[in-house]
Amino acid sequence: MSIKKAVVLLSGGLDSATVLAMARAEGYECHALSVAYGQRHSAELQAAACVAQRLGAASHKHIHVNLDAIGGSALTDRSIAVPEVETTGIPVTYVPARNTLFLSLALGQAEVVGAQALFIGVNAVDYSGYPDCRPAFIEAFQHLASVATKAGVEGAGFKIHTPLIALTKGEIIRRGTALGVDFAETVSCYQADADGRACGRCDSCRIRREGFVAAGLTDQTRYV
Amino acid sequence: MSIKKAVVLLSGGLDSATVLAMARAEGYECHALSVAYGQRHSAELQAAACVAQRLGAASHKHIHVNLDAIGGSALTDRSIAVPEVETTGIPVTYVPARNTLFLSLALGQAEVVGAQALFIGVNAVDYSGYPDCRPAFIEAFQHLASVATKAGVEGAGFKIHTPLIALTKGEIIRRGTALGVDFAETVSCYQADADGRACGRCDSCRIRREGFVAAGLTDQTRYV
Repeated sequence: MSIKKAVVLLSGGLDSATVLAMARAEGYECHALSVAYGQRHSAELQAAACVAQRLGAASHKHIHVNLDAIGGSALTDRSIAVPEVETTGIPVTYVPARNTLFLSLALGQAEVVGAQALFIGVNAVDYSGYPDCRPAFIEAFQHLASVATKAGVEGAGFKIHTPLIALTKGEIIRRGTALGVDFAETVSCYQADADGRACGRCDSCRIRREGFVAAGLTDQTRYV
Repeated sequence: MSIKKAVVLLSGGLDSATVLAMARAEGYECHALSVAYGQRHSAELQAAACVAQRLGAASHKHIHVNLDAIGGSALTDRSIAVPEVETTGIPVTYVPARNTLFLSLALGQAEVVGAQALFIGVNAVDYSGYPDCRPAFIEAFQHLASVATKAGVEGAGFKIHTPLIALTKGEIIRRGTALGVDFAETVSCYQADADGRACGRCDSCRIRREGFVAAGLTDQTRYV
């Protein structure tokens, strides 16, 4: 029987850690890929290394992209403040074309390691309203992958897995906990400090905190 | 009248220089974007800076992506030799998901500067057989752009321009020459030296050389 291989996008946050645990539970040999894109929360990347090791990733690559040269988001441009009150519409933490970029890197990695599965922790329930977290985006990328690559044109192609897309944050936390994720290792905060301690006030902290309450589990997040 | 803005992917090679000249001739304010992806031909990037300045780009950004961490191509992995004889099928100089990555970066940049036009110098006539140079790929990305971004969902969306797609190399060279491109400044070679001098033997050099012959113009390429 041939080995099932997957590339798993791993940010070091709560969602992608759960995705890696789910992919491992499904029997995939997992190649974790973390993208450092000039974001403020570099502590997330240290978290990603811990998570990859704990959950038994076969490999873990870091790709660096200086998206701060492009800017346009509170996560890539230090002159734009991270909001600490709930906003309507697409927030300033939206990074233009971020998941398109992440999936394009995962696609390249998948082609090189011979993986047909790409896992990404997008979620269309308890999320921040980003356009590139919706099923329509994933379907469009899946089609693109089939025409963009040598493996898509000549080989077996690719399948993009989004196991969190219809789960609430509470459900994600329960699922991850059952699969051995140590959420104390993960960092979700948009402005975590160098030690990975969360602000407790940004959109991402708010969604995470409410998720632990909904899951009925103790929130082990380290706050400043 | 509002200014027409475009993001133009500029490699420093012959094709993308011609694309920039064409976009300028169509009246676009052009924001050039060059991607350094750990490739061997870094001389191309120096060429890109010269070309952007000569052709009057409004801005020129460099994005660095360490694709050598992924490897899998003669252009990103030094252990894979650049072939010097013509091969059949998709060659080892194919970089997995490269144009997907390039367009995702251009898309992010376009969203930030408020450009609706993305220009890329793909060509499906005198090319190396890469899957991500075909019209089917461009159409798939165009659809993706409309669902992946804030500007696609809420705004006027994007149009991907591929003015070279149906031209022969000879036609591209004639068009570029008429529009003021100085091809001596451009570098096409897959293994140019630090001064931008071409090997004269790789696939890219062969296609370029034949293009100048077909155009009936003097090839001012500097060879080693």
